Amino acid sequence: MTAAREVELEGHIIDSGMMGAAFGIIMDLGGSFDVEEFRIGRHENEESYARLLVEAEDEETLQSIVHELHQNGANPSDPKDATLQRAPKDKVVPYGFYSTTNHPTEVRIDGEWIEVENIEMDCAVVVEGHDSDDPRAYTKVLSAVEEGDLVVAGETGIRVSPPERPRNREGAFGFMQGGVSSERPSESTIRQVGDAIEETKREGGDVLAVCGPALIHSGAREDLARLVRGGYIDMLSIGNGFAVHDLERDLYGTSLGMDTETLDHPRKGHKHHIYTISEIIREGGIEQAVESGTVESGVMYECVENDVPFVIAGSIRDDGPLPDTITDSMEAQNAIREQAHEADLVLMLSTLLHSVAVGNCLPSTTRTVCVDINPATVTQLLDRGSDQAVGMVTDIGTFVPILADHLLDEG
Amino acid sequence: MTAAREVELEGHIIDSGMMGAAFGIIMDLGGSFDVEEFRIGRHENEESYARLLVEAEDEETLQSIVHELHQNGANPSDPKDATLQRAPKDKVVPYGFYSTTNHPTEVRIDGEWIEVENIEMDCAVVVEGHDSDDPRAYTKVLSAVEEGDLVVAGETGIRVSPPERPRNREGAFGFMQGGVSSERPSESTIRQVGDAIEETKREGGDVLAVCGPALIHSGAREDLARLVRGGYIDMLSIGNGFAVHDLERDLYGTSLGMDTETLDHPRKGHKHHIYTISEIIREGGIEQAVESGTVESGVMYECVENDVPFVIAGSIRDDGPLPDTITDSMEAQNAIREQAHEADLVLMLSTLLHSVAVGNCLPSTTRTVCVDINPATVTQLLDRGSDQAVGMVTDIGTFVPILADHLLDEG
Amino acid sequence: MTAAREVELEGHIIDSGMMGAAFGIIMDLGGSFDVEEFRIGRHENEESYARLLVEAEDEETLQSIVHELHQNGANPSDPKDATLQRAPKDKVVPYGFYSTTNHPTEVRIDGEWIEVENIEMDCAVVVEGHDSDDPRAYTKVLSAVEEGDLVVAGETGIRVSPPERPRNREGAFGFMQGGVSSERPSESTIRQVGDAIEETKREGGDVLAVCGPALIHSGAREDLARLVRGGYIDMLSIGNGFAVHDLERDLYGTSLGMDTETLDHPRKGHKHHIYTISEIIREGGIEQAVESGTVESGVMYECVENDVPFVIAGSIRDDGPLPDTITDSMEAQNAIREQAHEADLVLMLSTLLHSVAVGNCLPSTTRTVCVDINPATVTQLLDRGSDQAVGMVTDIGTFVPILADHLLDEG
Amino acid sequence: MTAAREVELEGHIIDSGMMGAAFGIIMDLGGSFDVEEFRIGRHENEESYARLLVEAEDEETLQSIVHELHQNGANPSDPKDATLQRAPKDKVVPYGFYSTTNHPTEVRIDGEWIEVENIEMDCAVVVEGHDSDDPRAYTKVLSAVEEGDLVVAGETGIRVSPPERPRNREGAFGFMQGGVSSERPSESTIRQVGDAIEETKREGGDVLAVCGPALIHSGAREDLARLVRGGYIDMLSIGNGFAVHDLERDLYGTSLGMDTETLDHPRKGHKHHIYTISEIIREGGIEQAVESGTVESGVMYECVENDVPFVIAGSIRDDGPLPDTITDSMEAQNAIREQAHEADLVLMLSTLLHSVAVGNCLPSTTRTVCVDINPATVTQLLDRGSDQAVGMVTDIGTFVPILADHLLDEG
Repeated sequence: MTAAREVELEGHIIDSGMMGAAFGIIMDLGGSFDVEEFRIGRHENEESYARLLVEAEDEETLQSIVHELHQNGANPSDPKDATLQRAPKDKVVPYGFYSTTNHPTEVRIDGEWIEVENIEMDCAVVVEGHDSDDPRAYTKVLSAVEEGDLVVAGETGIRVSPPERPRNREGAFGFMQGGVSSERPSESTIRQVGDAIEETKREGGDVLAVCGPALIHSGAREDLARLVRGGYIDMLSIGNGFAVHDLERDLYGTSLGMDTETLDHPRKGHKHHIYTISEIIREGGIEQAVESGTVESGVMYECVENDVPFVIAGSIRDDGPLPDTITDSMEAQNAIREQAHEADLVLMLSTLLHSVAVGNCLPSTTRTVCVDINPATVTQLLDRGSDQAVGMVTDIGTFVPILADHLLDEG
Repeated sequence: MTAAREVELEGHIIDSGMMGAAFGIIMDLGGSFDVEEFRIGRHENEESYARLLVEAEDEETLQSIVHELHQNGANPSDPKDATLQRAPKDKVVPYGFYSTTNHPTEVRIDGEWIEVENIEMDCAVVVEGHDSDDPRAYTKVLSAVEEGDLVVAGETGIRVSPPERPRNREGAFGFMQGGVSSERPSESTIRQVGDAIEETKREGGDVLAVCGPALIHSGAREDLARLVRGGYIDMLSIGNGFAVHDLERDLYGTSLGMDTETLDHPRKGHKHHIYTISEIIREGGIEQAVESGTVESGVMYECVENDVPFVIAGSIRDDGPLPDTITDSMEAQNAIREQAHEADLVLMLSTLLHSVAVGNCLPSTTRTVCVDINPATVTQLLDRGSDQAVGMVTDIGTFVPILADHLLDEG
Repeated sequence: MTAAREVELEGHIIDSGMMGAAFGIIMDLGGSFDVEEFRIGRHENEESYARLLVEAEDEETLQSIVHELHQNGANPSDPKDATLQRAPKDKVVPYGFYSTTNHPTEVRIDGEWIEVENIEMDCAVVVEGHDSDDPRAYTKVLSAVEEGDLVVAGETGIRVSPPERPRNREGAFGFMQGGVSSERPSESTIRQVGDAIEETKREGGDVLAVCGPALIHSGAREDLARLVRGGYIDMLSIGNGFAVHDLERDLYGTSLGMDTETLDHPRKGHKHHIYTISEIIREGGIEQAVESGTVESGVMYECVENDVPFVIAGSIRDDGPLPDTITDSMEAQNAIREQAHEADLVLMLSTLLHSVAVGNCLPSTTRTVCVDINPATVTQLLDRGSDQAVGMVTDIGTFVPILADHLLDEG
Repeated sequence: MTAAREVELEGHIIDSGMMGAAFGIIMDLGGSFDVEEFRIGRHENEESYARLLVEAEDEETLQSIVHELHQNGANPSDPKDATLQRAPKDKVVPYGFYSTTNHPTEVRIDGEWIEVENIEMDCAVVVEGHDSDDPRAYTKVLSAVEEGDLVVAGETGIRVSPPERPRNREGAFGFMQGGVSSERPSESTIRQVGDAIEETKREGGDVLAVCGPALIHSGAREDLARLVRGGYIDMLSIGNGFAVHDLERDLYGTSLGMDTETLDHPRKGHKHHIYTISEIIREGGIEQAVESGTVESGVMYECVENDVPFVIAGSIRDDGPLPDTITDSMEAQNAIREQAHEADLVLMLSTLLHSVAVGNCLPSTTRTVCVDINPATVTQLLDRGSDQAVGMVTDIGTFVPILADHLLDEG
């Protein structure tokens, strides 16, 4: 072994599995290790500490091991400053740039650890004012990188802190640790989601609802509108289809051509959605249609009336689209990004595309509830290394009414 | 063309698709036809009539065409008596025996059309007293055929009447015509299921609930128990697992080891189901456990207290099983068969195996509601040629509570 | 009854179900009818004809009936010219504009029936040169409508011809009539898809492949590349993710970080996709990266080398995106629209979003094969009233290799 | 704290997660601990050791903690003998009997640790000859317990050894550690399954195939028959439906009425399965039908010809059933149990019911490959705490042919 480095692990490193993961990484990648120091936390609140000497046959192997340890929260015990390189052109990053995880991250500039702002996955880290007293570091997606940006490269001087699965399961978010629930008691689980929303609001946090059109078709529109009116939804992230079907219900009493109360299909109903789009275009947009009195109810109506901001992100399958729909996907992604960074609790309700888009922008510390009738969707959304995310396989058409009853009708 | 036969079609033969199907069959099988007579019903209540002369190259082709037309409700205009042959041995039917559909069927004995009793799919038709004044015909599954039974063979003298999709969609069962609903409004659909149950009860009919263990895990146990207590469930068809988890909830407060209220997993909980089985074996059975006061709540408890008969059918994946479980699959199938023949409305709730078993014994005229969170299950169960069956893709853990509220809390 | 109109039905109106549908529409909507003339086609190749006098209580009801009959292929026997109205503003259509189906459609201008070009669903029909000798009619999506466009409105002068389910099931496309196949023999079905591709190519037609990233992850990349090289794919419609993962496999030997041959996960592999994007941005685009020799294999490589045009449509979940990705969803939709209109056979391979986008632009006459492991995806894609579409529930990772072997290795 | 006990952990306790799990259990259940001794294995092959002093407020809490630690492989450092109690009646176990896990287990009798034979989940442990020199311990399902059996009760004197996830991922079974693969490269994964089968056969092991009828419908019958003929399948575990459809293909060329080569549906085909059952009943059974020359091909045929034993377990949804079908579910379970205990590698192919039944009888150390197109089925089957099980979401109709080609056509 010709290459060696010391790394440290701190926190609930055993019961969170971090230490096991670290041992596994080292051995899988062909290294070995000595445990130079090891203190075990014996109670819920006591943290553990380990210092390992990692060894490998050559420097390259060692670096690859240390890289992986980083990603999992092990940090060098003798940190150096982060390496900074200039972006050679717009949208072009330096070779070997550091691509972020979604975990809280710090970079070391001039001996000081600086929190990376707006952390999200798969970004570059740009440093500003690195030679000033008050340097900043923040994420930039590749397409936003500008020529001359100082970009973090390599592996040194970066500290990642994956959130640990908390030992103590109390509080409204205690339940948010079990992955997907398809065989959990449905009503009890929905009440716990409700409690988590209330706790978030009580703490002054913001709730972002990401909704797909199935919510409207399944008859949950009025209940979601009640939740907006009741102040439980602070932001809405949707697609063109959701807005169109919500507005169609107001203008024609149908959703995708079906009367959601009587379950009748009025003939000509299949044209209602395209007529709806046409009407809103004629008015100039959703807000105008609400103000003119054309639209008098529904989720979009309540958003306008209650100043709840919404982002309508366009997609290639859209009809129309509505004038409010952001058709450029990068512009829409940026609008979603802002919502995601502000949110304290995210409800992902029956939409894969928009949930993935929002999820891509979330740090691993944001509480997320994902609801879909398709277990594959829930699994895919939770599969992002966040212990703050909980999934529920249920019918959105019964989930939202029961949630609204729990939040609005009690006391 | 050397072979020809006249067949008749009667009823709503155009808007039910029967006539189109008949034309298709003849042409697909290489025949041709003349429409000798044709009267069209012009209103909802007026039936149509057509008489076709079907022609084919040889008698074999013609028979195969006529056979298919039969299955779809077209009948020869000059019927002959059914051919009867003796079963040569127990469980052995004559060659070319007639295997039933699940549609109402008559056989012609001595010039008279006799209704086949207890019609269900894939059975032999046995005729009793064929030379008496009062002959009977009824279905027998293969394994019940006895040496000497007079069995219907061939194609002649058999009349099948597939139920037509009614034109008039009013009444509580009007909604039962749309196949699977995954994007229908959930609450409205559940209310319509409730209305159909009430209509059935009002007409003196019997409701059979076929339930899987997911109903218990998803927290709907208490609501189903309420429905039993309220008189809305007349028979229960379940497996060993359903009963065990229902009883486990009473004895240990858990289902599959999870507390369905608090969502906690008490340690040792995974052993509760096996302890439950052991306790009920010790008592001698479910009824004894209710009478001794060991079991004090739940679906099985309410069945015992309210004289609602239940069939617990065994399967190879059972633990235990409970003393009440019928371990022989043919004996269990016969018990299920009796339930199925008595039922006027069948609720299939989150179980594929038991729903298929019940469905196999149902005539196509029995109203059936199939609820599952897995669309493939619903599709498979509906795929049996019955327009009286409706499917709903939803969460059984929210379906049952909303249904119970609708049926029990109104007025 | 104070309002009446004659309509005609022509073709295989009974076995295609058209006549039954027409009767149903009239009665459901509260009308009645007399069959004034009726000739039945008695052989496969003989068409039927019916003339109905449709009656209703008032003109409005009658119009709504006639509207529905239209959509299903029944046409007035005394047609009038289509009503044309000017679009008042860009993107704003006249009230009551006619919104298209995806079936072949004609409009009547000055007594002449003119085929609507580029028919697709949910569009307006714009007429050009209506007072010239050579008027044209074509579809425009709402957002493309310009002030002053002459737009078809109302219901008169429009003739819709839903394709009939052909009686004769021979030829490579004979199998394309059975909806979703989840329990069909897989290898035989794949061979039939191959035969349909070969027949299309033999007839000089164009094959459009619409592909999702799962195709790459599941190891089918090399086989799709073979098909491109072999001339079986004429156009490619994909998203940013597909292209990135295909290129990642070339640059790093992995797809989503996994080696698709050895199934190893090289550490750091999860960063490969973002490095791949960065490299292609650095090169300026995919074509440049192929020409510079950076990219040497794969689907995108073969497209560049074999002049197979590709459309990469952006979405809000994209990383990067690649320079080739069209980020504006309406611009991307237009590019997809062009592909869809040129295609004679469309393969939809493991992507819901892109398949829906392409499907929206297809006329009901274009042959479509939809392959996905999720039956819900296949069902949703087929649920568009096209008998030319066939679905297969299978693993794309085995489908493409078996298809490629069938097309490339035989003879 | 008034109650304390020492427990030991041995093996790869950190990277297998065992130590983290132990810490979690103690804290979740309200205890605390001191690490009295701790040695870390630093290389792949070096094991670790830890001795903890577990403390709790009262003896009951302590026992519940120690119980859970047991289940996870932590054992008391000062073991006592197991407590034995007599079964009071047939099928009735003593109160507090020990219910088994599926992990290798020993019980301590007279100071000696004895391996529990035929370990499987949810059984009682019966001890024979406990005062002889050669005591035995083995599992009994509840229904097999006889009055007077000496049954292990309580928690002491029992040692459970959950298999560890091996560090070293080489060999054909190296891939069997990744849970469900829906986005893994399909062909490469199938080849690895093939290698695992070959390795098992090379080592003299037995392969048990558990198959559902979808295997036949999807066209894989001939390839499975090839594998039986080639000696790769040593035992077959199926239901009545599988056998019927396999035999139907031989007798009528169809499966569920469809020709699996041409994909045609011969008219009358839907009756073939019931005719098939009738024919086999007439012959007296499958073996007789093969010997008489009535059945000449297929999976059942090859089993008879190659002396591959099969178990056909009955279920309530069976038609017929065949004379070979074991209709009593407990008798069938016992036949399955024997197969499961003999098997070294289990292939679960497209059947939930039979796979669960077999899985219930398997120790956690038996290698298992589970293949289904429905991810929920695969997840449910893998969710049994075995790291020796691997799942694959794919089409059985392409899986079996590719597997057979890999095993039979190479070299």
